[in-house]
Amino acid sequence: MWSFAEKHWAEKIVQLALAEDVGRGDITTTAVIGPDAIARGSIVFREQGVLAGLPVVEMVYGMLDDRVRIVPLRRDGDILLAGESAARVEGPASAILTGERVALNFLQRLSGAATITAELVELVRPYPCQVVDTRKTSPGMRVLEKYAVRVGGGRNHRLGLDDAILIKDNHVIAAGGIAKAVAAARAKAPLTARIEVEAESREQVEEALDAGVDIIMLDNMEVGKMAQMVALINGRALVEASGGITRDNIASVAAAGVDCISVGAITHSSRALDVALDLEVIAKDAE
Amino acid sequence: MWSFAEKHWAEKIVQLALAEDVGRGDITTTAVIGPDAIARGSIVFREQGVLAGLPVVEMVYGMLDDRVRIVPLRRDGDILLAGESAARVEGPASAILTGERVALNFLQRLSGAATITAELVELVRPYPCQVVDTRKTSPGMRVLEKYAVRVGGGRNHRLGLDDAILIKDNHVIAAGGIAKAVAAARAKAPLTARIEVEAESREQVEEALDAGVDIIMLDNMEVGKMAQMVALINGRALVEASGGITRDNIASVAAAGVDCISVGAITHSSRALDVALDLEVIAKDAE
Amino acid sequence: MWSFAEKHWAEKIVQLALAEDVGRGDITTTAVIGPDAIARGSIVFREQGVLAGLPVVEMVYGMLDDRVRIVPLRRDGDILLAGESAARVEGPASAILTGERVALNFLQRLSGAATITAELVELVRPYPCQVVDTRKTSPGMRVLEKYAVRVGGGRNHRLGLDDAILIKDNHVIAAGGIAKAVAAARAKAPLTARIEVEAESREQVEEALDAGVDIIMLDNMEVGKMAQMVALINGRALVEASGGITRDNIASVAAAGVDCISVGAITHSSRALDVALDLEVIAKDAE
Amino acid sequence: MWSFAEKHWAEKIVQLALAEDVGRGDITTTAVIGPDAIARGSIVFREQGVLAGLPVVEMVYGMLDDRVRIVPLRRDGDILLAGESAARVEGPASAILTGERVALNFLQRLSGAATITAELVELVRPYPCQVVDTRKTSPGMRVLEKYAVRVGGGRNHRLGLDDAILIKDNHVIAAGGIAKAVAAARAKAPLTARIEVEAESREQVEEALDAGVDIIMLDNMEVGKMAQMVALINGRALVEASGGITRDNIASVAAAGVDCISVGAITHSSRALDVALDLEVIAKDAE
Amino acid sequence: MWSFAEKHWAEKIVQLALAEDVGRGDITTTAVIGPDAIARGSIVFREQGVLAGLPVVEMVYGMLDDRVRIVPLRRDGDILLAGESAARVEGPASAILTGERVALNFLQRLSGAATITAELVELVRPYPCQVVDTRKTSPGMRVLEKYAVRVGGGRNHRLGLDDAILIKDNHVIAAGGIAKAVAAARAKAPLTARIEVEAESREQVEEALDAGVDIIMLDNMEVGKMAQMVALINGRALVEASGGITRDNIASVAAAGVDCISVGAITHSSRALDVALDLEVIAKDAE
Amino acid sequence: MWSFAEKHWAEKIVQLALAEDVGRGDITTTAVIGPDAIARGSIVFREQGVLAGLPVVEMVYGMLDDRVRIVPLRRDGDILLAGESAARVEGPASAILTGERVALNFLQRLSGAATITAELVELVRPYPCQVVDTRKTSPGMRVLEKYAVRVGGGRNHRLGLDDAILIKDNHVIAAGGIAKAVAAARAKAPLTARIEVEAESREQVEEALDAGVDIIMLDNMEVGKMAQMVALINGRALVEASGGITRDNIASVAAAGVDCISVGAITHSSRALDVALDLEVIAKDAE
Repeated sequence: MWSFAEKHWAEKIVQLALAEDVGRGDITTTAVIGPDAIARGSIVFREQGVLAGLPVVEMVYGMLDDRVRIVPLRRDGDILLAGESAARVEGPASAILTGERVALNFLQRLSGAATITAELVELVRPYPCQVVDTRKTSPGMRVLEKYAVRVGGGRNHRLGLDDAILIKDNHVIAAGGIAKAVAAARAKAPLTARIEVEAESREQVEEALDAGVDIIMLDNMEVGKMAQMVALINGRALVEASGGITRDNIASVAAAGVDCISVGAITHSSRALDVALDLEVIAKDAE
Repeated sequence: MWSFAEKHWAEKIVQLALAEDVGRGDITTTAVIGPDAIARGSIVFREQGVLAGLPVVEMVYGMLDDRVRIVPLRRDGDILLAGESAARVEGPASAILTGERVALNFLQRLSGAATITAELVELVRPYPCQVVDTRKTSPGMRVLEKYAVRVGGGRNHRLGLDDAILIKDNHVIAAGGIAKAVAAARAKAPLTARIEVEAESREQVEEALDAGVDIIMLDNMEVGKMAQMVALINGRALVEASGGITRDNIASVAAAGVDCISVGAITHSSRALDVALDLEVIAKDAE
Repeated sequence: MWSFAEKHWAEKIVQLALAEDVGRGDITTTAVIGPDAIARGSIVFREQGVLAGLPVVEMVYGMLDDRVRIVPLRRDGDILLAGESAARVEGPASAILTGERVALNFLQRLSGAATITAELVELVRPYPCQVVDTRKTSPGMRVLEKYAVRVGGGRNHRLGLDDAILIKDNHVIAAGGIAKAVAAARAKAPLTARIEVEAESREQVEEALDAGVDIIMLDNMEVGKMAQMVALINGRALVEASGGITRDNIASVAAAGVDCISVGAITHSSRALDVALDLEVIAKDAE
Repeated sequence: MWSFAEKHWAEKIVQLALAEDVGRGDITTTAVIGPDAIARGSIVFREQGVLAGLPVVEMVYGMLDDRVRIVPLRRDGDILLAGESAARVEGPASAILTGERVALNFLQRLSGAATITAELVELVRPYPCQVVDTRKTSPGMRVLEKYAVRVGGGRNHRLGLDDAILIKDNHVIAAGGIAKAVAAARAKAPLTARIEVEAESREQVEEALDAGVDIIMLDNMEVGKMAQMVALINGRALVEASGGITRDNIASVAAAGVDCISVGAITHSSRALDVALDLEVIAKDAE
Repeated sequence: MWSFAEKHWAEKIVQLALAEDVGRGDITTTAVIGPDAIARGSIVFREQGVLAGLPVVEMVYGMLDDRVRIVPLRRDGDILLAGESAARVEGPASAILTGERVALNFLQRLSGAATITAELVELVRPYPCQVVDTRKTSPGMRVLEKYAVRVGGGRNHRLGLDDAILIKDNHVIAAGGIAKAVAAARAKAPLTARIEVEAESREQVEEALDAGVDIIMLDNMEVGKMAQMVALINGRALVEASGGITRDNIASVAAAGVDCISVGAITHSSRALDVALDLEVIAKDAE
Repeated sequence: MWSFAEKHWAEKIVQLALAEDVGRGDITTTAVIGPDAIARGSIVFREQGVLAGLPVVEMVYGMLDDRVRIVPLRRDGDILLAGESAARVEGPASAILTGERVALNFLQRLSGAATITAELVELVRPYPCQVVDTRKTSPGMRVLEKYAVRVGGGRNHRLGLDDAILIKDNHVIAAGGIAKAVAAARAKAPLTARIEVEAESREQVEEALDAGVDIIMLDNMEVGKMAQMVALINGRALVEASGGITRDNIASVAAAGVDCISVGAITHSSRALDVALDLEVIAKDAE
């Protein structure tokens, strides 16, 4: 689940987060906490949600001080109730306190994204339809937030601009029509890439089908029309619904028969879940 | 407003955001858009809000292709109505399309943070009280989000762990009391740093006053009690209210007489403002 | 042609190449060449080939000294005869001499790769078949070598591990069969990714077809059998030939009807084309 | 043999190679291979050659997943016959498969360079003459390829532009003659650096001898003339032959009595040796 | 004492120091020392001083070769007499020799800074006055030199430009007076930052007091006048003496009653303490 | 004089110096100086010395704000009297004030090193003897300090561990004698590298001569004995004096006939020259 790529990209953003927060030193902890003081505690969910990001917490503390031990009590993907603990934390009090905010900033955001994803997945469960993410991710968090979406039961759409072809309105204008745009993509892009086209009308859907695309994105279309397009497409391409989808309308969109629904808000406007680090400090010897 | 530090930190996160999004190339644009196609358009607010982050948009496109011109029509800090344009954009269509998502991801988030800050500032306007931020910022975005808070009329609290002393409950436990913690900070930390103490009870407020701290943070205290503490402190230290503050109760907290109110949600859970790039592509010669 | 991604990745490897070559300074040039000496010359092909990498030469000199001017006489993709010039070079003699080796190292390798690609493309021209690259690229040169392949008329296969699914024998073993492997990919990988399967036998080709894959790679198969498989597949998937393909047999493989042929040697064992920098130094004042 | 410098420079290029190949994740392995599947196998030479680069393989896997164990069966510098194994590999199947291509890309190239070096060294064995490399190395691979040359029995020439003075024709023109160029080098360059001069004629050799240089490079000279120059120099400077040297003529050049022969092709056009990773996957539990 | 921030910043400058010194390899050691040779020895003070920087020595060798063991015999902050050892060193001779110079360069400088700090602290011991540092640190060594000052018994002033407000003459001119400058700082800078003002006259001291600043810096004032200003300030702000302070006059400045004295020379012109690495090499087998 | 290598290495340490000093922003200047305030002034020597490092000042301000103009009035290498100006500075007051300390930190140190070098060079002027530097440089400043030494009229010794062979006592022990150590170096190190041996006795000098080394370092030898060794060596190798050399004895060492004298103190303990930035701020509109 947490492979080289997640570690590789997490390292960059964790290092940046520590650098911007710690600066030239945690002057409070350095002055006030003795070097031998030990702290013990746990990471506690203050509200219910899906745990995501525990390996980032381990990475944060691994960079700070390898004597801090994180003992996972639950795994990424588990649903925790308010009051339940995700992990135990133990080690030098100074390092634990210095890293607390950065560690929680990651965990709260990723758990927030996983939680909203899981809620949406639950809403479409009656239908053979997947919830997918977008490229509207927090800067520097692409790989981690895409991971959180998977943890929450969602599926990834494009990871970036280089792994699939998505032809939007401006590409169509520049190329002189859907057929020409698809032909150019088929002739020049890596032949291993799928081709998706954004369509806003029946005419565009038909053009896309004629061009033999792999996926058709129905953009900002009302639900009744989507159902018609699904019937028209009839399995000749995957169908993605996009634009203006919320908790309130996602089930009806899924009911229209689309294969997947992309929702930008699960990453661009997710709320930080309320998670805290409850600690007990054992002051051995204030320096 | 946009000084060396903002540029320095923005460069790191913008480079990371472009790297994670573009990967080994925008295969759609490379295949479909001719190298001589030109695009023209503007950055349009789809809902009302405070503009913040225009220099980041310029930085994104400066890194992508210096032939893209961004002509600001408004300045960071301006309030834009739905439908108003923040800037005109013109240049090679391929570069503009490649950078669109990353540029908007920054602009939407920073404008979102500035907008919610401005709303809170408006709510406390009748009182001599400032809205301040926290360290609950998006990873890698510390300096930019603190900038957005200022743009929205808020004031910055600590930039990180090294620029002020903030003694919390665990520091007090480790040191053996507020007096000892403050004494240690006064003896060892840089003498240029202010000392703030978190207090949850009248006893702690009194201890902090006796220790001569610069700022007292009233943490998760109900409003009536805050007013009593303000009276007790009586100008001997700055008073900060913190914890559980929302649009609904911020005015009453300000009315209690505190000097500033810190709100984590303006950075940890801000909503991306709805901003789009409206383009017209002039296809010179599809390659 | 030379977009953000090429620049972005080229910068990393060009910086590394300059760092490892120049070290703490070009002590010969610093001591022997006066600061005001000027050099003029041109980049000359000593043997016929396809030009690829001129933008890297510009980048190398842009990093060294922006007073060096590179005036392209030909464009990437042009075929140059022995003795023809690709560009004129003019500027401070010291900078031109310091950068000569690094600039040529890039240009010779990329032109070498483009040239061998063009030779192979020429050999399959009678057939509706494309020459594609592999991931057997020089470390750090992935994006540049993939660019050189396109310049030579070839087509890109996967850019890396994240932009398409390629199921090889070990994946099949681990998953318990082609059907299961494809099902797992279809359930969990980004839905925008094509699925390719490596097949070594008729049974595997049939399994792959049943699983509905997008591309079938015929691995190290002899030509007669390939033709049979092409007939069997009959347009239900793209067909890629791979393994042991050289100048000598590529035409016969193409004749078997495959859609594309991948050749690792165009990047892992390409020969540096013989290209030189012919200079005239105008010694103004030896320091 | 494999000291800090090799590690230091290897880390840079290995990180770059992994970044460009893995991108945002190995989507095939992530989807298809269960997290608990184990693989076992070995790195096998498919053709005879000199092993070089095993520590890079260890580094690649150390970065990917420290649970992968590489057990060397042979050492860098050993000659392996076709079919012989260089090392055993064991660990998580997903990590082993993700790193396979990058690890082999390094090993094949470095072993290729060591192998061709060893062939040339063998050809000059009857003579007191060394095979040396040049600065025509693959970008980013300078230190590793110089290492491979040593592993193959060759000797290093300059590591870069800062560790010796090599005065070529353009330096001579700029300085106004060999004597003046050498005098400038002797007066200004670090006094710890040797001085080598490129000579194309008897006159230049004599000038170089008069200037008291340490090494004379006979550039593109035919063999008979080289022998005359060796006699003329008569031990007063080291003699290096350079330019147009191949397997076919290297022995005759060595017979002319030069001290060393530099060959660019051992690094700029070396062929990747055919080396493979033979694996057995033990699918514990496809996720 | 040696927390995340020290490690974080030390890593950057240690990596740079190793890169610039080792370059592409320690060619002496590689050629002359067998890979199995072992060395043993100790780090010896050749003159009396305060030890500072032992963790940097450990970091240098940790990067070079983790088989080198550093066994501390004394701790940072201890005073060593000439001839006393700070630590034992044991491990591969080649790594120990390669890292010797870089390790000592750090240790000598940091111990030099701690030693001169301790001397000044001793001179003001009779007075309730602290010795503080400035921003006149060696480039890249800010956090390490500030650490050395603390090790020597001094106290840190500002760590950088972002952790306190220091209003100097040019800021006053730009703002139109001390009162306006302080008001601007109080309105816009982070409210957690202390405000210090540089004053050169009684008028400026009075203005600063009226503005309610936290610290007043008496800049280049003669001692008698300082005493008057201390009396005038009378505890309403901390008083810092700055400018032209040396071993010869520091006690008299302290006697004037200031709270602290800042001395740039402890970092900008500290002398490297004479420290050496005494080694015994056990040549197992010269390669 | 100021070539790619100086720029390349300067960029690293200048970026580090700005990062550590500016942190998350110059909060004084941001709050107090209006964005339109302009400053004008000049960089003034407060004591006599050799100017070195003006290009670093330009680099610092180029990174901060490219509207700051530095107009050199003198060149690196010029001797400035107390009160003379090195350059004029003009531009936005905020950027000039933010960069002042970092710019001066570099200029003062490099000018300090050039000045002490020039003093030593002057002392040995009657003799055909050069003053050379060592590897005892400030961390991260190797290339810049070596540059300053050249500016001061000195000559560079080794730039690092990879550009010459210097066999010291421990290498000799490990190799089993000078002859064996030199033979190993001659057999394995790059053949372009000079070989220097450290000798402490007549026996060692004779051994080194027998081994045919290029340079002999007389380490910590008293002057009379040095003269004897110079006579013994008699031009068969260059002679370097090293160890314990100061202003007081350098002339007598030079008189002993050595070719060069290395002095660690010119870089490891140089004093920052007293240089200041005298500014006039024109407050257009305090923000």
